Amino acid sequence: MSEVVNCAAYASGQRVADVEVKDISEVLKQADRFIWVGLHEPEEELLRQVQQEFGLHDLAIEDAHRAHQRPKLERYGDSLFIVLHAAQMDRERRRIHFGETHLFVGPKYVVSVRHGSSLSYAEVRARCETTPQLLCNGPGFVLYALMDFIVDQYFPIVDVLEDELEELEEEIFGEAFSRETTQRIYHLKRQLLEVKRAVSPLMDMCNRLIRFDLELIPEDTRPYFRDVYDHVIRINEIVDTQRELLTTAFEANLSLTAGAQNEVMKRLAGWAAIIAVPTMIAGVFGMNFEFIPELKWHLGYPLVVGLMLGACGFLYFHFKRSGWF
Amino acid sequence: MSEVVNCAAYASGQRVADVEVKDISEVLKQADRFIWVGLHEPEEELLRQVQQEFGLHDLAIEDAHRAHQRPKLERYGDSLFIVLHAAQMDRERRRIHFGETHLFVGPKYVVSVRHGSSLSYAEVRARCETTPQLLCNGPGFVLYALMDFIVDQYFPIVDVLEDELEELEEEIFGEAFSRETTQRIYHLKRQLLEVKRAVSPLMDMCNRLIRFDLELIPEDTRPYFRDVYDHVIRINEIVDTQRELLTTAFEANLSLTAGAQNEVMKRLAGWAAIIAVPTMIAGVFGMNFEFIPELKWHLGYPLVVGLMLGACGFLYFHFKRSGWF
Amino acid sequence: MSEVVNCAAYASGQRVADVEVKDISEVLKQADRFIWVGLHEPEEELLRQVQQEFGLHDLAIEDAHRAHQRPKLERYGDSLFIVLHAAQMDRERRRIHFGETHLFVGPKYVVSVRHGSSLSYAEVRARCETTPQLLCNGPGFVLYALMDFIVDQYFPIVDVLEDELEELEEEIFGEAFSRETTQRIYHLKRQLLEVKRAVSPLMDMCNRLIRFDLELIPEDTRPYFRDVYDHVIRINEIVDTQRELLTTAFEANLSLTAGAQNEVMKRLAGWAAIIAVPTMIAGVFGMNFEFIPELKWHLGYPLVVGLMLGACGFLYFHFKRSGWF
Amino acid sequence: MSEVVNCAAYASGQRVADVEVKDISEVLKQADRFIWVGLHEPEEELLRQVQQEFGLHDLAIEDAHRAHQRPKLERYGDSLFIVLHAAQMDRERRRIHFGETHLFVGPKYVVSVRHGSSLSYAEVRARCETTPQLLCNGPGFVLYALMDFIVDQYFPIVDVLEDELEELEEEIFGEAFSRETTQRIYHLKRQLLEVKRAVSPLMDMCNRLIRFDLELIPEDTRPYFRDVYDHVIRINEIVDTQRELLTTAFEANLSLTAGAQNEVMKRLAGWAAIIAVPTMIAGVFGMNFEFIPELKWHLGYPLVVGLMLGACGFLYFHFKRSGWF
Amino acid sequence: MSEVVNCAAYASGQRVADVEVKDISEVLKQADRFIWVGLHEPEEELLRQVQQEFGLHDLAIEDAHRAHQRPKLERYGDSLFIVLHAAQMDRERRRIHFGETHLFVGPKYVVSVRHGSSLSYAEVRARCETTPQLLCNGPGFVLYALMDFIVDQYFPIVDVLEDELEELEEEIFGEAFSRETTQRIYHLKRQLLEVKRAVSPLMDMCNRLIRFDLELIPEDTRPYFRDVYDHVIRINEIVDTQRELLTTAFEANLSLTAGAQNEVMKRLAGWAAIIAVPTMIAGVFGMNFEFIPELKWHLGYPLVVGLMLGACGFLYFHFKRSGWF
Repeated sequence: MSEVVNCAAYASGQRVADVEVKDISEVLKQADRFIWVGLHEPEEELLRQVQQEFGLHDLAIEDAHRAHQRPKLERYGDSLFIVLHAAQMDRERRRIHFGETHLFVGPKYVVSVRHGSSLSYAEVRARCETTPQLLCNGPGFVLYALMDFIVDQYFPIVDVLEDELEELEEEIFGEAFSRETTQRIYHLKRQLLEVKRAVSPLMDMCNRLIRFDLELIPEDTRPYFRDVYDHVIRINEIVDTQRELLTTAFEANLSLTAGAQNEVMKRLAGWAAIIAVPTMIAGVFGMNFEFIPELKWHLGYPLVVGLMLGACGFLYFHFKRSGWF
Repeated sequence: MSEVVNCAAYASGQRVADVEVKDISEVLKQADRFIWVGLHEPEEELLRQVQQEFGLHDLAIEDAHRAHQRPKLERYGDSLFIVLHAAQMDRERRRIHFGETHLFVGPKYVVSVRHGSSLSYAEVRARCETTPQLLCNGPGFVLYALMDFIVDQYFPIVDVLEDELEELEEEIFGEAFSRETTQRIYHLKRQLLEVKRAVSPLMDMCNRLIRFDLELIPEDTRPYFRDVYDHVIRINEIVDTQRELLTTAFEANLSLTAGAQNEVMKRLAGWAAIIAVPTMIAGVFGMNFEFIPELKWHLGYPLVVGLMLGACGFLYFHFKRSGWF
Repeated sequence: MSEVVNCAAYASGQRVADVEVKDISEVLKQADRFIWVGLHEPEEELLRQVQQEFGLHDLAIEDAHRAHQRPKLERYGDSLFIVLHAAQMDRERRRIHFGETHLFVGPKYVVSVRHGSSLSYAEVRARCETTPQLLCNGPGFVLYALMDFIVDQYFPIVDVLEDELEELEEEIFGEAFSRETTQRIYHLKRQLLEVKRAVSPLMDMCNRLIRFDLELIPEDTRPYFRDVYDHVIRINEIVDTQRELLTTAFEANLSLTAGAQNEVMKRLAGWAAIIAVPTMIAGVFGMNFEFIPELKWHLGYPLVVGLMLGACGFLYFHFKRSGWF
Repeated sequence: MSEVVNCAAYASGQRVADVEVKDISEVLKQADRFIWVGLHEPEEELLRQVQQEFGLHDLAIEDAHRAHQRPKLERYGDSLFIVLHAAQMDRERRRIHFGETHLFVGPKYVVSVRHGSSLSYAEVRARCETTPQLLCNGPGFVLYALMDFIVDQYFPIVDVLEDELEELEEEIFGEAFSRETTQRIYHLKRQLLEVKRAVSPLMDMCNRLIRFDLELIPEDTRPYFRDVYDHVIRINEIVDTQRELLTTAFEANLSLTAGAQNEVMKRLAGWAAIIAVPTMIAGVFGMNFEFIPELKWHLGYPLVVGLMLGACGFLYFHFKRSGWF
Repeated sequence: MSEVVNCAAYASGQRVADVEVKDISEVLKQADRFIWVGLHEPEEELLRQVQQEFGLHDLAIEDAHRAHQRPKLERYGDSLFIVLHAAQMDRERRRIHFGETHLFVGPKYVVSVRHGSSLSYAEVRARCETTPQLLCNGPGFVLYALMDFIVDQYFPIVDVLEDELEELEEEIFGEAFSRETTQRIYHLKRQLLEVKRAVSPLMDMCNRLIRFDLELIPEDTRPYFRDVYDHVIRINEIVDTQRELLTTAFEANLSLTAGAQNEVMKRLAGWAAIIAVPTMIAGVFGMNFEFIPELKWHLGYPLVVGLMLGACGFLYFHFKRSGWF
């Protein structure tokens, strides 16, 4: 994939021309046009060129180059610099891969810089181009489309995490609990924290977009950001609920393990007694005293064996009744 | 049940006419009338028709069609879009079924869209029609009546959950604790979180209705929303108290289990000693040495048996005194 | 007790006349008078009459009739509707009984409606009548006197709860811990949550009375509400501290139980070894081999018994030294 | 100690005269003077006299008389009423003694009322009198000096508590854990909560003094209150960190105890096996069957003893290898 | 190292002269110049001199002299006093060493006072001098450069802490858990709290620098503080995530230990039974009754041994099947 994925000019919601990076500043002079550039892990040189064409701020460009930023929205003069974390679930290995996207949004341009394993935004561009009546709202709408696309990628992920929790619940309550279950609970907790860290800053960001940065986001586009806001809150709520349930699951598991231990111990104690009593009786009649009258009895042996069986039986039913067996 | 459950025009608190969906925009032109439409899981086509008649916002209609929204209140121009979660308890299987209701409230209309297993609002409509002096407050009052109806459905549910907690307390402290108890605690926690998620956004919503959206909610209707607000807070408080008690119940249970384990272990240890001591003594006199003088004694056997009984008795009373038995 | 406990008119801080409920609206026409009515679990009919005389709001009257409200302060026009929870400790059964009081406070009246097991307000009235210089501040001061009376009832209750915690601490750390202790901890937690639920809404209420509802609460009366506020905060703080200590008490108990279990297990293990070793030795010399030279020795028996005692002694001192006994 | 510890007039930062309580109102008429009175557990009569001389509010005087207030700052007209909790550590018994100080601060006076075991403020007065350039700021500076003195008493206390935590850490991780350790953890938690309750309200108080009560606190004195604020925050932070560490210490202890139990159990199990196996073998050859060919063998006995030793040895090394011993 | 590390005057972003401390006030009279002084653990005398030259506030100088301040930002007139905690990781002993830096920032000067083990700021000065176009922003930019330098020192530290957590996870889930692991978890928790205490006040400080202290921080420099703010938030987030994971790790460990204990107990119980059963059978046939017919049987012995082996085998497979072995 080339560094410049796409670079086109739009007017009245229609794509009017593909543009070379070096011609951007030329095109921007035309009224009622905006440019949408998509970059993928660009070299510093290209970034510097883009910076010059659009007149972007040094700090933002440095951030976009180094990546490893947390999700944020910053305003430089009349333009916005936005960092978003895209996520994808590697279903087989149950790992979440995070990618970073940096957006520069100005009155007449949108630049997206994609790092890591996020999906291409070709699809977003295509979808936008099919709704010119919305795209004519300009860069503000493109920003919405990109945020919406990224946020919606988290829904399948939290679905997988919810499934994982349900599987874990079944293991916990279905006596299939093992070392591995604990490890999976821990792993799930980690992933929930990662998702939360990626998503929760978006609440503030949406809020600011809805309320404050007026010129860039036309009035008509605001409800769309409210929609994104809503999705973010939902993801956040699901993650919080899951975290609380996981904590409870741990407690439940501890409680079950302790209970199971009690069960085992009672049974162990019971059988120990049942075996120990005849052993003791046998020991008594195994003593070598010369004068143990019972040893001479004809019925001594069967009587003692009977006594043993009786003792065992008594204990067995006693424990049964007490619920130990 | 048909998709359009009911569609009527009201004037001065009185139902003046049943209206066809296609005639709505006609009727709305008359002053001092408002229309109340009740839909049940409508097809997209019908929704689009309703949208056109009332001039509703695209995003709201999409939400209402897809359902799976969280409870929220959004303002589009001079109308409100409201999502509420209705709930019903399936008492037999102790499961809560959630349904979704979407409301569009404008200066001259209320549209309710019902999804899933919520109760019909026919009852609400009937009750409203019996109090024309209140209904004449218009769509604002209808909104109150619907919210009140939905919120009041949560009281029997939290009652059931409170009963469940009390039953669990009895199991925990009444030694009837089992695997199943833990599972029920977990299940109860889950349900409490579900109720909280459905109810707690209503606090903000009521607050906004009381304070901000002035034109739609006439001054006289505000105290009614305060009443709903109050109910929501009460439900919320009960749920929070229950959650904290559940956590304590878990700790109590863990503490009791550990205590019980100690009891069992002490008793196990005690009886083990009582059985092991005579076994050991018997072993000693079961040795085959040629010169064990005691074996020759006439009273050896009864003396040794006496010794055994004495040792057992001593141990028994010793453990009894130490509180081990 | 009759439904109308007391109904009197006051002027310049002096009780000037007892009034029939039906004459109230007459009396209110006189300037500089206010009426203080005390009701106890009134029938709906009486409430409706009172409503008409004072011109109270429907919703407030409904609340006052149904009871089961949470503590709250609501403003209807120029009057306030206040719900308070009074509490009394049944010391013998260590249960807290909650009662509900509803107050209607207007520029020229105070109506108190008492439900459940709260104390009579005759005492408050008597005390107010002895300080005409304060009572001349009107309904605002009566409101203070009632709130102060109710809040001060919580101090003996939290004292009892603090005593209970101290007793529990002694049980926990004094090895007197039992199933019942756990149950009492749980019960105490429940009561703390109940007190919190009854008291904490008062903070907001006092704050609003101090700051906002200006006409009803004369400037001079404000410091008194600040005093109530202060008491509420103190009760709240005590409850919060207790809750945190209870949680720690649970952890301490778990820790102690686990430690005790270790102790028991070590001792159990030690004694098991001390008994098992001679049993094993005896077993060896109880074998029936024809050629066991030791069996023929004259000193075999005393030597072996000596060996047994030696082994036991060695083990005993070994465990003693390791701190197992 | 007399009830009136000190009562002096100051002008331009210099002590100009000792004043009798009854002459106070006289002295206050002189411009540019302020009076600083120090009382120690005064009788009601004296307090009433002071009240009249300075014109203090009834409620504040009642509070000052009854003591048992929480730390607070209240404004009555143009004067402030301040409650502070002083603390001192009884190092031997490791108990914190709390005393209460009530301050009345007006434009021309400071009255301090000391209850319980707090230190005398003679030292503060002496120090203030040595810095007339600061003391000339008037009552506001005296207030600072007293607050600073009280807050600084908490530093040695939190130092002792930090030492205590470190000792506890050593006990926990150094296998010296005992019942008493748990009790000390609990005791420390209680003390931390007490310190927090005494100190944390000071944050709000300082904030209000820095920002709002303008006339009493001259602009130049504000940075000093910011300094007190800073100390309060530091104490608060230390307490919070300690509380979190204590919770972790409990968890660590539980984890260690559980681990130790596992160790003991494994060792117990191992030795039980090592003793039980030869006992069983001996039992077999202790049977009285007439035809047990092995019993006739010349080498039977040494072979069997060898077998026993071999089994024991095998088990011993097996457990050693598995890390059980 | 001398106390005065460096003292130079700057104009238009260029270093124009090295200055003696005593000449500072002279130099400050020249327009468009600012002075940057670096001190290292200065004696009180030098500090007093600096105070006079720049006209700094008493309280700030006292703080700077005594050190042991928490991170804070205070405004004295038109100058700022800032306390920062620098940190360095002693990788070998895995301990974090904290140093304190105090900054005085005025319209025409920056004074840094370094205490303890923080790095020298020579590097910061050098870097600033290479970017005159930024340094010409004056003291505000120097403040940014110093804060950025200090904050960036925390990244390698949290990296080490993250590595530590990963190692701990491996120990916990890899059955290598030991006493030492618990101790390391505790130690890590302590370090996280220390880092949090050093870093989290910086959020507020950056916020204030971005928003309020206008004259000192030129508009162009603000985005740089936003950058620092961002780094602080990231460090803070990492620390919070780690703390939550550590808590979960503790729970996981407790759960695993309890599970392991159950495993051990089941195995112990199983083998105890397998050994006890033949012992009991042997005991029976070791009794000395005269009439035990089986003892006379030719095949008695092999039959009984077979019975024993059969019983053991049966038990072994039974336990195997139940998952106890």
